[in-house]
Amino acid sequence: MSSHTALGVLEFTGIFVFAISGALVAIQKGFDAVGILILAEVTALGGGVVRDLVIGDTPPGAFRNAWYLLIPLAAATVAFFAHPVVERLNFGVLLFDAAGLGLFCVTGTLKALAHGLGPVQSAVLGVTTGVGGGLLRDVIARETPAVVKYDTDLYSIPAMVGAAVVTVAYKLHWPLTVAAPAAAVFVFGFRVVAMVRHWRAPRAWTRGRA
Amino acid sequence: MSSHTALGVLEFTGIFVFAISGALVAIQKGFDAVGILILAEVTALGGGVVRDLVIGDTPPGAFRNAWYLLIPLAAATVAFFAHPVVERLNFGVLLFDAAGLGLFCVTGTLKALAHGLGPVQSAVLGVTTGVGGGLLRDVIARETPAVVKYDTDLYSIPAMVGAAVVTVAYKLHWPLTVAAPAAAVFVFGFRVVAMVRHWRAPRAWTRGRA
Amino acid sequence: MSSHTALGVLEFTGIFVFAISGALVAIQKGFDAVGILILAEVTALGGGVVRDLVIGDTPPGAFRNAWYLLIPLAAATVAFFAHPVVERLNFGVLLFDAAGLGLFCVTGTLKALAHGLGPVQSAVLGVTTGVGGGLLRDVIARETPAVVKYDTDLYSIPAMVGAAVVTVAYKLHWPLTVAAPAAAVFVFGFRVVAMVRHWRAPRAWTRGRA
Repeated sequence: MSSHTALGVLEFTGIFVFAISGALVAIQKGFDAVGILILAEVTALGGGVVRDLVIGDTPPGAFRNAWYLLIPLAAATVAFFAHPVVERLNFGVLLFDAAGLGLFCVTGTLKALAHGLGPVQSAVLGVTTGVGGGLLRDVIARETPAVVKYDTDLYSIPAMVGAAVVTVAYKLHWPLTVAAPAAAVFVFGFRVVAMVRHWRAPRAWTRGRA
Repeated sequence: MSSHTALGVLEFTGIFVFAISGALVAIQKGFDAVGILILAEVTALGGGVVRDLVIGDTPPGAFRNAWYLLIPLAAATVAFFAHPVVERLNFGVLLFDAAGLGLFCVTGTLKALAHGLGPVQSAVLGVTTGVGGGLLRDVIARETPAVVKYDTDLYSIPAMVGAAVVTVAYKLHWPLTVAAPAAAVFVFGFRVVAMVRHWRAPRAWTRGRA
Repeated sequence: MSSHTALGVLEFTGIFVFAISGALVAIQKGFDAVGILILAEVTALGGGVVRDLVIGDTPPGAFRNAWYLLIPLAAATVAFFAHPVVERLNFGVLLFDAAGLGLFCVTGTLKALAHGLGPVQSAVLGVTTGVGGGLLRDVIARETPAVVKYDTDLYSIPAMVGAAVVTVAYKLHWPLTVAAPAAAVFVFGFRVVAMVRHWRAPRAWTRGRA
C-alpha cells in the first residue's frame, strides 16, 4: 500500500469516526433520522470546510468528491441501526476519534502552509480542522461545546501542540514524510493519555485566589 | 409575464415568507426590533449565502442586489406591527414557506450543478439552500433546530427528494423548463401533505428494540 | 504619529477589547483556558472574517498578519490571570468596546464599498463587522445573543446609523478623512449615551395593544 493510499484510508477513517460521534450525539438528543444525518455530516466535514473557506480554496475539499459526503451518510446509517453496539464500543470510537484529530490537525496545518499562509495562521487552521466540526456539532445539538467546557479531558491542546510541531518542521525544512506522521501519532498518543488520566486544562484564577 | 419574471416573483415571495418565519420566532422569544430584523435576514438569506460561499461565488447572490436585503426588512416591519394578524394566518404562512422550500432547493441545486459541482454535492447544496436559513435562525434563537428535532413534520426529506429529482433530470438532459418546476411543485405538495398528516422521520432504533 | 499608524493602534485596541469581552464571558461560564482563548479569538475576529468571506477577500484580513491572532491570545492571557481586576474596570472595558464598535462598523463599511459592493450591502457588512463577533461569542457560550435580546442597551442601532452615514459620505464624495472618524466618534458617543441612559430598542407591538 503506497503512503498516498494509506493517507486516503486514514482520512476516510477519520471522517467516518467523526461522523459516528456526531450521529451518536444526535441519537442521545432524540433527534430524527434527518438530524442524525445532519450532525454526522457537520461533525465530520465542518472543520475542513471552514478551513478551506478561510484559505479561499473553493469549493472546499469536502465538496470535490462525493465520497466525503457519502461516508458520513454510511456512518449515520450504521449508528441509526447499531447504536447500542457502537455505544458499547465507546472507547474504541474515542480511540479512532483521537486518530482523526491527529490526522486532521496535521493535514489541515500543512494545507494552509502550502497555500502560503503564515505559521501562526496555519497552526490555527490546523486546529480548526481538528476541532471545528465538533464545535458546530455541539452548537446545533444545543450542548455546551466540549472544546470550551472545563469538565472534559484535553482535546484541543494536543491538536495545538501537533499543529505547532508540524509548522516548525515545515519552516525548518525537516523531512515531512517523517515529521507529519510523527506529529499525528504524537497528537493521538497525547489525547489518549489525557483521556485515560483525565487531564484537564485549567480554569481562570478564581477571585478567591487572586 | 415571462418565466424569468415569474421566477423572480417566486424568489422574492420565498425570501419574504422565510423572513416572516424568522421574525415570528424572534417575536415569540421576546427579542427587540433589531433581533427581529437579524432573524428575518438570517432566515431568508442564510441558506443561499452558505451555498454561494461553498461554491466560491462571491459576493453571494444575496449581496449583489439590495432588494435581497431590503425584502427581509419589509417582512420584519410587517411582522413587527401586524404579528397577531400574521400568526392568525399561520397556515397560510406555512403554505408559502413550503413554496419557498420547493423553489430554493431546486434553484440551489441547479446553481451548484451549473458551477460544475458533482451531483451528490449539488443536491446537498440544494437542500442547504432550502433548510440552512431555518437552522441558523434556530441556533441564534436558542431553539433546538426544527430540522433535527423528532417532533416536527417532514421538512428536509421533501427537499432531499426534490434536489435528487432535479439532479437526475439535469444529468439525463431532461428539459429543465419542465423538470425544475415539476420538482419544486412536488416538494411543495410533499411538504404540505406531510404537515397535514403529521408525517415524521423515524428516530434511531431504540435500545429496547435492538 | 501618522493617521495610518493611529488607525492601526485603534484597530489593535479594538481587537484587544473585543477579545477581553469574549474571554470574560468564557470565564463567567466557567470554561477552561482553551475555551477562554477560543471565545477571545472568535469575538475579536469573527465579524471581520464573515465580512471578508462574503466580499470574497480570502484569506480574510485576520489571517494575513499573525498579530491579529496573537492579540486575542494576549487578551485571553490577561483575562485569565487578572479577571477580577478587569471586571472591576467593567465600565472602562465597555468604553473601549464602544470605541471598537465605532471603528469596526466604519472600516468594515468602507472595505465593502471599496470592493464594489452596493451601499445597502456595504452598510450591512459594516454592522456585521461590528456585531458579528459578539453574536458568535454568545452562540458558542449558549447565551441568548445580546444583539437580539430586549433587555440590553442599544448596540446595533448606533452601528447601523454609523454605517449609513459613512455610506452616504462615500457615495456623495465627502472627504472621508473627516467623515469616517466623525462617524466612528458618533457611533462611540451614541453607544455610550445609550449605555448610561439604558436606551432600548422596542419589542413588537403586543397582542393586547394590537
